[in-house]
Parts: sequence; C-alpha cells; structure tokens
Amino acid sequence: MSRNRSVILAARPRGQPAPGDFRVVSAPLPAIADGEFLLRNHYVSLDAGFRNWMNEGSGDSVLPAMALGAPVMGLTLGEVVESRHADYVPGNLVMARLAWQEYSVANGHDFISRLPDQPPCPLSYYLGVLGDTGLSAYFGLTEIAAPQAGETVLISAAGGAVGSIAGQIAKRFGAHTVGIAGGPEKCRRLVTELGYAAAVDHRLGSEFATALREACPNGIDVYFDNVGGAVLEVVLNQINPGARIVLCGAVASYGAQQPLPGPSNLFQLVTKQAAMHGFLTHTRVDRYDAARATLVEWIERGEIVPIEYRLDGIDNVGRAFCDLFAGRNFGKTVVKLTDR
Amino acid sequence: MSRNRSVILAARPRGQPAPGDFRVVSAPLPAIADGEFLLRNHYVSLDAGFRNWMNEGSGDSVLPAMALGAPVMGLTLGEVVESRHADYVPGNLVMARLAWQEYSVANGHDFISRLPDQPPCPLSYYLGVLGDTGLSAYFGLTEIAAPQAGETVLISAAGGAVGSIAGQIAKRFGAHTVGIAGGPEKCRRLVTELGYAAAVDHRLGSEFATALREACPNGIDVYFDNVGGAVLEVVLNQINPGARIVLCGAVASYGAQQPLPGPSNLFQLVTKQAAMHGFLTHTRVDRYDAARATLVEWIERGEIVPIEYRLDGIDNVGRAFCDLFAGRNFGKTVVKLTDR
Repeated sequence: MSRNRSVILAARPRGQPAPGDFRVVSAPLPAIADGEFLLRNHYVSLDAGFRNWMNEGSGDSVLPAMALGAPVMGLTLGEVVESRHADYVPGNLVMARLAWQEYSVANGHDFISRLPDQPPCPLSYYLGVLGDTGLSAYFGLTEIAAPQAGETVLISAAGGAVGSIAGQIAKRFGAHTVGIAGGPEKCRRLVTELGYAAAVDHRLGSEFATALREACPNGIDVYFDNVGGAVLEVVLNQINPGARIVLCGAVASYGAQQPLPGPSNLFQLVTKQAAMHGFLTHTRVDRYDAARATLVEWIERGEIVPIEYRLDGIDNVGRAFCDLFAGRNFGKTVVKLTDR
Repeated sequence: MSRNRSVILAARPRGQPAPGDFRVVSAPLPAIADGEFLLRNHYVSLDAGFRNWMNEGSGDSVLPAMALGAPVMGLTLGEVVESRHADYVPGNLVMARLAWQEYSVANGHDFISRLPDQPPCPLSYYLGVLGDTGLSAYFGLTEIAAPQAGETVLISAAGGAVGSIAGQIAKRFGAHTVGIAGGPEKCRRLVTELGYAAAVDHRLGSEFATALREACPNGIDVYFDNVGGAVLEVVLNQINPGARIVLCGAVASYGAQQPLPGPSNLFQLVTKQAAMHGFLTHTRVDRYDAARATLVEWIERGEIVPIEYRLDGIDNVGRAFCDLFAGRNFGKTVVKLTDR
C-alpha cells in the first residue's frame, strides 16, 4: 500500500458531532526524516474528550484546537514499520496521541507509550481495559472508592468504556453493583453481559429517583460518576453515611474541561459525611504496568470481560465517534484498521 | 424572681427573620415534677440553623417545627437551681436544646451535655469556641483539611462563629490564612482581630475573583466552606492540585438542611484531583473532651482568641438572632441573661 488515508475535520461540529463533520482523504505515504518513524495504525480509539479540541479557539499553547482540513487528533495504536529513530525498530507497538490515519509519522514525543512486542492480550485491549479508561476504572475503584463487600456501588455511563470495567471490578470486590445507562436495551446488557446486579434507565425522567431507590434498597455507598448533572443530584439524595463519590477523569487525562453541572443539594455531603473525590489517571503512570498486570490476571481468570463496540476501516472512524455521542456504543469504542 | 420571661414565636419569619417575629412574654416560674429539674439560663446561643424549624411543616417526628406562640427552640447554657432528678443537683451546669427563656424545665433528655461545675473558661465559651461551632472548626481543620505550613487556607464566613476559630487554628498550623466576609469593616477586623493574613470582601461582585487571586497568590490548598453558592464556584477555579474543600456541618449537627447551591465547575475537582468532604461535628462527641482540652490550652497560650458578638437580656434575644442573618455579628453570637 503506497497511499495513506486520513480522516480530516471537514467542519467544526455544532453540538453533537455528525458524520458530515469528517471526511476521508487519501495522500501518498509520508516520508520520514531523521529521528522519526512511521507507524501503521492497527486501531483508533474513540474518546469523547477529543470533541473539545474541535471547537474554534479551544485548547492551549501546548495542545491547540484542531485545524480545519487537517487529520483529526486522536488516540491510536500502531506498529513501527519504518524507523530513522534510534529507540524504535519495526515491530515495536506504541500508543500515541496522533491522528485518525492509517499511517502516522511520529518522533517519540507524541505522548507515546510502548507496548510489549508480544502483548498478552488482544491489541485493542490496550486502548480499553488496559488503557486510560480501564485504568481509570481500576484506580478509581481500588484507590479511591475502595468498596467493601456488601456495599452498594452505583456507576453512571455504566456500559461505557470506563463504566463497563468499573462495574466488573466493583463486583469482584463483592459489592452490590448497579449501573445507570440510557434505554432498556443497554440496561438489559448491563445485567446480562457485565454482571450488574441491577440497572436503571436514566431516561425514566421523574421516575428515575424511584427506580434508583428500588435498585439500591440499602442506599448508595459509592457513586462512580462519569457524567455529573441531574443524575448526581438524584444520587446525592440517596447516599449513605460515609459515601464516596468518585468523579472520574479518564477524559480529563487529555486536559479536557467537561461541564459537570453542580447539584443543588451538595449539603447532602455534610449530613451524610460523604466525600467527593476528583481524580486523574495519568498522574499514576508509574503504576500503569502493575495495574495492567493485575487487570490481565483478572481477565485471564474471566473475572473481567472486556466489551468493545468495534467498527472496521478508516471510513467508519467518524461514524464511530458520532456513535459515542448518540449513545450507540456499548463498551470501549474502537475502530480496527488492519487485520492484526 | 418568681416570674419567667420567654421569647415566643409570634409570627413565622418570611425570608430573613425580623424582630417582630418574636415577642417576650412573662409567666409564673414553672413547677417541676419528679424526674425534672429547673435551669436558670445564663446564656442563649444564636445559631442560624434553628431558622429552619420556624417554617410551617419543617422538622420531622423527632424534632417537629416550632409552634406559633410557644417559646422559641434554641441552644441554652443554664445552671440547675432546683432538682427532682437523681442525676442533677443545684449548681450543675448544662448545655441543652431548650428554648429562649430565663428559666427552663428539663428532664435530662433534651440533648443535654454537662459542663464541669468549675469551668476553666468563661461560661459563654462553651457555646462558641468550646461548643459546636468551635469544635467544627477544630475537627474540620485538624482531621479533614490538615493544612501544612505554607499552604493557603481560605475560609468563608470568616468572622462567624465557626470561621473566627477556624482561621486562628489554620494560622496556628503555619498556613497563609485568607478570610472571606461581607463589607470592608468586617474584612478589616479579620486581619486586625483574628490574625488573617488577608481578607476578601464577597460583596465585590465581579471583582471578587480578582481580589481573591491577589489574596491567594499561590492558589488555594484548603477551602473551609460555611456558605456554598457562588463563592464556591469562584474558589474552585483557583484551587491547587490536591486541594481539600471542607463543607462544614456545624449547623447540620442539629439536623438542618441548608441549601448549598452547586457550582457549575465541579469538574475542577477532577482536573485538580481535589476532594470535597462534608462532615458533622456531633458524630465525634466521644472526642469532645479531648478537643476542648486542646482548645483551652491554645486559648490560655493566647494562640486562639475567642471573639463574641454579645447582647444582654432576654429582650435582645430576638434581635441577636436577626443580627445573625443581617450579618451584623462578628464572632460567636450569644445573649447573656444573668450576671454569671
């Protein structure tokens, strides 16, 4: 293959991204200079946080807004196919914040983390359960929420990249796990595929609070929140004394600023002597290897089953991104670009 | 004296309480039955939280709403003057949730805590620095915020019953203490009387954020919050990584539900890996004696100077309560009823 196809930002999305905001273009395979290497991207990871850089004037001097007409910035998993860099040889596998492309030129400075050349898991797991989202679930639960057996752990966006792993980890701790998702079909999958004890549909509107109370008859000890907003307000009214609310920073690890509207009943934190912890995953990078080893063990024992929402081919990357916002995904959203 | 004067709830306050909502009535001194004792109240403590029980339909089965025409419920410090109760003899000093009266009949079940017969401090200190408000400051700072020397500790309602003690404790820890209060006069007193390094007037409106940044040039490590709302939102934008926000439950210790409107930028907790802790003081009642001993030591060394806003006589109790809401108080608000 001597051509490289890329997805470019054709228009800045208004609100939710639409397929027309993206366009696939083809160009000759790029040449590399000294100190660079060429990656063939096996997977693209789709992460909602990148939506922020699509806005005019977003970003900062380190990571400015994406340019119109340029390849869309994203998280990729690629294999070195050609190298003029001393530290990288063909066959090396790397994750990087590069772009939605079949091939990318890198220099080792693009927030690259290296994978073992013979990974113990399917490659795509490194973008999900072993990537930022899975590690967010891992650290948020093991280090911050620390659920006890029998406690009730509630997880929002429970079928998402973070939530789908968080729910399974919490269950492993012996917690009564309850997931929140949108629509009956996702709620069904939370129970059948992810092992949640119960699921609550946040689209129930005024009946949501009652349904939540039924799903959490003993109150809520841990709330692992990926969304904020109205749900947080309802949850605060049902927390137990000593509850821990974990605000998850998977997305924030890329520096995004998500709106997280404040609930009007923060005083519940006082009356329940509860705590709300924000955390970022990437500050724990020195423990990624250990955490991944543990997660691999749990996967091998069948205690954690990674679920993916996977599309194929560069033509589907934009659509996969849009599906995230439309809530069509379940599990970690990736696009597979090659046969590996 | 054979008469007993009481302040009754003459009208349910609309919004902020007004002096006309209260009226002093006189009645014969009550007789006590077996198992009861008569208290002569030396002090009445004024606490904003009690405002909640003045509303029709407030309270619960344990502690219902105050009745119109009945003595106003409040925190009192009295001395047993007559007893038909085996555990109380004349001369015993007690704090109780009774009513705004010169004399009260008690049976030992009115959330009474006993004082030493020969207290090491002025009596009124037991309603302030050694009472729920001072203990809230103490536990909130020593157990939750745990400021390090050189850190910036910001305190809202900094001249209030809790804040006036919290600021001095934080200073004792070597922190850069900054207080928030309403109006230039109170801000001046924060610095001159309470030892705050700087003070910021929350009435500055749109300039508040800038003034806060000037007062906290190294960012905010601890925010001891007694108010919530718009100030919390501004503060969240200036917190440092690892910041601790303490939501103080002095008032909540009586079960009150204060509105604490949510900020729209809770996501700052994520990007700063900060935590927001709600806490109640009364769950630490087993450590009150030890905490009081420590506070008395600090007072004797001159490291903590209790400040009171004190009026005299039963006729001024209603006014003192109104002053709390009008922000006329500075320090702990009490009314002295006797010469002791």
